[in-house]
Amino acid sequence: MTKISVIKEIMGANDQVAAQNRGRFDASGTFVINLMAAPGAGKTSLILATVPCLPSGIGPGVIEGDLASTIDAEKVAARGIPVVQINTGGNCHLDASMVQNALPHLPLDSIDVLFIENVGNLICPANFALGADLAVVVASVSEGHDKPYKYPAIFAAADAVVLNKADLQEVFDFDLDFFRRGVEMVNPAAPLFLVSCRTGAGIEEWAAWLMKQMGQVAPCPPSQTSRPR
Amino acid sequence: MTKISVIKEIMGANDQVAAQNRGRFDASGTFVINLMAAPGAGKTSLILATVPCLPSGIGPGVIEGDLASTIDAEKVAARGIPVVQINTGGNCHLDASMVQNALPHLPLDSIDVLFIENVGNLICPANFALGADLAVVVASVSEGHDKPYKYPAIFAAADAVVLNKADLQEVFDFDLDFFRRGVEMVNPAAPLFLVSCRTGAGIEEWAAWLMKQMGQVAPCPPSQTSRPR
Repeated sequence: MTKISVIKEIMGANDQVAAQNRGRFDASGTFVINLMAAPGAGKTSLILATVPCLPSGIGPGVIEGDLASTIDAEKVAARGIPVVQINTGGNCHLDASMVQNALPHLPLDSIDVLFIENVGNLICPANFALGADLAVVVASVSEGHDKPYKYPAIFAAADAVVLNKADLQEVFDFDLDFFRRGVEMVNPAAPLFLVSCRTGAGIEEWAAWLMKQMGQVAPCPPSQTSRPR
Repeated sequence: MTKISVIKEIMGANDQVAAQNRGRFDASGTFVINLMAAPGAGKTSLILATVPCLPSGIGPGVIEGDLASTIDAEKVAARGIPVVQINTGGNCHLDASMVQNALPHLPLDSIDVLFIENVGNLICPANFALGADLAVVVASVSEGHDKPYKYPAIFAAADAVVLNKADLQEVFDFDLDFFRRGVEMVNPAAPLFLVSCRTGAGIEEWAAWLMKQMGQVAPCPPSQTSRPR
């Protein structure tokens, strides 16, 4: 009983800070995406493939969440994108306070779309609001087609599901229908985007949907989607 | 402060139950492996590839840990291996009590080696002893070569690291030296086994090491390692 009450307190406090983050994002006109995925699904790759598809004048920013290391933040910074790395130590997910503490280190007023890359984990991040506009789950073909059945909560919490490494379905005997049925079972409303951050396939469609959620219409220029680097 | 004290109590209680599990395993002469990995790294595949390499007379058993579904347990049961599925609900790792509750459902006295497949998660399982003889981390090439740097605690806790999908290093531009240095940085003592559960490559060496830890010497018959099904 003690355990449960403490968890409730923590969750309540997190939601309060998430609401404060939400207010800060509204004030700066920043659209925020909470990207959640298993380790190695391709969250950073998706961010780097999506940024070239942003319409001119839409400034990107990134918060990187990892237990340790600055590997992902360095990749993002190398593209000239404003980025803050949060190292959570042992913490298995970002929480609203970690994000709040990162915000003063970003030029938020010039960031129109902020990607928050959560810690690689298909479980815990689903329980902690950050103040984002969208929650997006990135799955990958190499993880297998059974993930929505095994990790239903995070797929249920998603506004969209991006299936990365879609060019490798044959290599992994990936059953797309089985995967799709799993997503639909727990979350009939979430659109599913098949992409390959490696080849650029599918990025244009995903980015166009994302822009639509932001009230933008400009799609990814074809020359960039074919090779998003 | 309240939060910390509660966590300490939980951990202390878990260690006590893990010690009870340990006593039960010793009584039945069961060698136990706690298999930890990210979602889709290939824990079940490694179990199914390893079992044909067990010497005659060494009986296997499996405990499957998942948030939801019985997908993995069904695969194991289809091979005629005694198996219990634990569904943790929202819990992001197995704990000693869950394992303890599963034991009456297994014919432990005829199980010489018990594989406990933990929940797919590279973070939380590292903090909860189950009473096993060995902790083994299964990584996979498709997750990328940076995982030991990003998730150091679980690699540090491993008695061995198995790198699965090793046949796909070229497809994923996998830098094996970088991965190996990362493992060595946090855990210089842990042996690293490169395997492909799909082709059977490397399974013989891994299984021979495992048998050695059990005090057994019989390696995997070559006819079986080449095609572990």
